[in-house]
Amino acid sequence: MSGTPGHTTTAILDVTIPPLDSEAREAAVDRQANLTKPPGSLGRLETMAADIAAMQSTTEPTVDPAAVVTMAADHGVTAEGVSAYPQSITAAMVANFCEGGAAVSALCGAADIRNVIVDMGVAGEVPPAVVDHHITDGTANMAAGPAMSREQALAAIAAGRSVVSEQAAEANLIGLGEMGIGNTTSSAAITALLTDNEVAAVTGHGTGIDEETRAQKVDVIEQAIETTTPDPTDPVDVVRSVGGFEIAGLVGVTLETASRRTPVVVDGFIAGAAALVAAAIEPRVVDYLLPSHASVEPGHEAQLDALGLESCFDYGMRLGEGTGAAVAVSVYRAACTAHTEMSTFAEAGLDTE
Amino acid sequence: MSGTPGHTTTAILDVTIPPLDSEAREAAVDRQANLTKPPGSLGRLETMAADIAAMQSTTEPTVDPAAVVTMAADHGVTAEGVSAYPQSITAAMVANFCEGGAAVSALCGAADIRNVIVDMGVAGEVPPAVVDHHITDGTANMAAGPAMSREQALAAIAAGRSVVSEQAAEANLIGLGEMGIGNTTSSAAITALLTDNEVAAVTGHGTGIDEETRAQKVDVIEQAIETTTPDPTDPVDVVRSVGGFEIAGLVGVTLETASRRTPVVVDGFIAGAAALVAAAIEPRVVDYLLPSHASVEPGHEAQLDALGLESCFDYGMRLGEGTGAAVAVSVYRAACTAHTEMSTFAEAGLDTE
Repeated sequence: MSGTPGHTTTAILDVTIPPLDSEAREAAVDRQANLTKPPGSLGRLETMAADIAAMQSTTEPTVDPAAVVTMAADHGVTAEGVSAYPQSITAAMVANFCEGGAAVSALCGAADIRNVIVDMGVAGEVPPAVVDHHITDGTANMAAGPAMSREQALAAIAAGRSVVSEQAAEANLIGLGEMGIGNTTSSAAITALLTDNEVAAVTGHGTGIDEETRAQKVDVIEQAIETTTPDPTDPVDVVRSVGGFEIAGLVGVTLETASRRTPVVVDGFIAGAAALVAAAIEPRVVDYLLPSHASVEPGHEAQLDALGLESCFDYGMRLGEGTGAAVAVSVYRAACTAHTEMSTFAEAGLDTE
Repeated sequence: MSGTPGHTTTAILDVTIPPLDSEAREAAVDRQANLTKPPGSLGRLETMAADIAAMQSTTEPTVDPAAVVTMAADHGVTAEGVSAYPQSITAAMVANFCEGGAAVSALCGAADIRNVIVDMGVAGEVPPAVVDHHITDGTANMAAGPAMSREQALAAIAAGRSVVSEQAAEANLIGLGEMGIGNTTSSAAITALLTDNEVAAVTGHGTGIDEETRAQKVDVIEQAIETTTPDPTDPVDVVRSVGGFEIAGLVGVTLETASRRTPVVVDGFIAGAAALVAAAIEPRVVDYLLPSHASVEPGHEAQLDALGLESCFDYGMRLGEGTGAAVAVSVYRAACTAHTEMSTFAEAGLDTE
C-alpha cells in the first residue's frame, strides 16, 4: 500500500474512544451548585471541572500528574525558504529542551508538569535523553512530492500512541507540544484541507517571516497540494502528503490519550492541525480536547471552530513547543481543585434556606 | 475632624510610591529578545515579565512567595435588601476560609499562594486564626447616612497597610481579595463616583439578584449618594460615605504593597473599587497594579479603563474572595519563570546569525 492514497484501514487507527460519562457530568454540575459560592459564580471554571469529570468518568476530576508531550521533527519544505530560521534550529532546540532552557521547559517547571520530549524525525543529532521514535531525517519537500509515505505516516501515529502508553500512562492530562522548523507550513496545508479554507486564509507569519515570504509560503503550500493531490476525506493521506512526523505523532498521542479517558490540551496552530487529523480519523476524539491559548496564527481560529473549542486566553502567543498548553494546565488545575476541595454549604454548616 | 468631609491629610495617607525602574524594564526587554524563542513569540507573557521587573527593580522578576489578602466586613446597607444572601454569610464564609473550604482557599492551595484572612469588621464571630483589625460590627446603612466615620476610614486604611508589613512583608506579589455581603453595592457607589459614571451603568447582579432587586439596588445607591453627599475629589470622603471596612482595608494593602515595589493583583469588582480609591489617593499606585479576570459585574470594565488595565482572561467569574487574583498568579508566575529560567541563544549555543 506504500504511497497509495486511499482509505486503507490499519490496526493503528482502530482506536476506541469511550463516550463521555454523562452521569459524572451531572454529578459534577450538582456538586458545583452546592459548593460554598453563589451558583455559577466561578463561571467557566465550573464548566471546565464538569467537562473533565465527564471525560475522566469520576467525581474527582484532576489534571495531576500532568504531562506535555513535545514532539520534534524536521521538514523538507524548509528548502523552499518558508521559515525565518534554518532547519538546524530544530535539533538545537531539542537539546535546549533537554537542558531545561526552552520556554516549554520553564513553563512546565513553573506549573509542575512533566515534559516528555520525543524525536520523531529530527535531521540532526539529539541528546540520548530524548524518547526515540525517529522515523527518518525529516520529511521530503512537499512542494516536490509527498512529505512521507503512508507507512511512515502510520508508523508516526503508532509512535505517538506508544509514547502515551509507555512514557505518560500515569498522566491525568496531556498537553500537545511540538518543535519543527517549517511546521507552520505543513499545518497551514493540513488546516486548509481539513477545514475547507483557502490556503491564504490559514497561512501566517510562523516564527516571524515578512509579508513577501508569507506570500511565497502560500504559493509553496498551494503547489504542494497540487503536486501531492491529498484526498481531504482521508486524514492519513493528508498527513502523508503535506504533514510532518511530529504532527503525525501528535495525532497518535491525541487518539491514545482520548481512548484512556484523559483530556488532551491542544496547544497552538501545529497541535491544532494534529487535533484536526485525529478528529477526522475518529470524530469522538473532540470530546476529550481542551483548548489553551488563542494563537496569533490566522488559521488557529478556523481549527478551533472546526473542533468546537473556544480558547481560554489570548496573550498573543505564537511559540508552540506546548507553551500554551503548559500555561493552560494551571487554569484546568484551578478548576479541578476548586471542584474537589471546596466545601458544600452543608459541610460548612452554611444553610442559606 | 470626625465625620467632616474635606481634604484633611493624615500620616496614614503619606505613602511614597517609587517610580518604576525603567532600566530594569529595558534590561528585561533586552533579555526577552535574546531568549531561545522567536522575538515576541511569548506575547503578553513577555510584557508581564518586563512590567514586574520594572516594579521590583530587578533582573529576576518573581511572584514567589505570593499572597492573597482576603479582607472581610459587613455592610449596613444589606438592610435595604440589596443582596441575595443574608449578612450572616459573611462570618460563616470567614470560618470557611479558615477551614480551607472556600473557592479562594482551594485556588490558593492549587497555586502555592498564602491566603491571609483579615476581619475588618465582620458582624459576627470569626475564628481566632483570622488577623484581627475589626473596626466595628459592619458599616452603618449608607442609604440613611455615612457608612463610617472619617476616623474609621483612615483606621481601616492603616490596618491594610499594617497587614502588608506584618503579615505579608515577604510576599513578592499580593492579590486583593474580599468577602462582605452587600459589598457590590458599596463598590458600585464608589465606582460611579470615581469614574464619573451613572450608578445604573456600574451596578450589577452581585451574588445573583434578579432584575427587580437590581433596580432597587440602583435606587438605594442613588439615595445613599444623595444622603451622604460624598466629595468625589476626596477619596477618603468617598470611602467614609459609601465604602466598606474591607474596601478601605484593601486601599491600605494596595498603597503599602506598591510602596514596597511589589505588584498588586486586582481581583474583581470590589477589589477594583479599592484600587480606584488607592489611585485617587496616590495616582502612582497604578504603576504597580496587575489585572486578573474580567468580572461579570458591569462596572468592572469602567474600573479597568480608569486604571489603565486590560483583563488577563474572561471566565465569567463573579465570586470575589481573591479568586480571580489567585488564578492570575499562575499566569504571572509563568511569565516570570520563562523570563528568568530560559536560556539565551548564546547560552544554548544557538547562534542564528
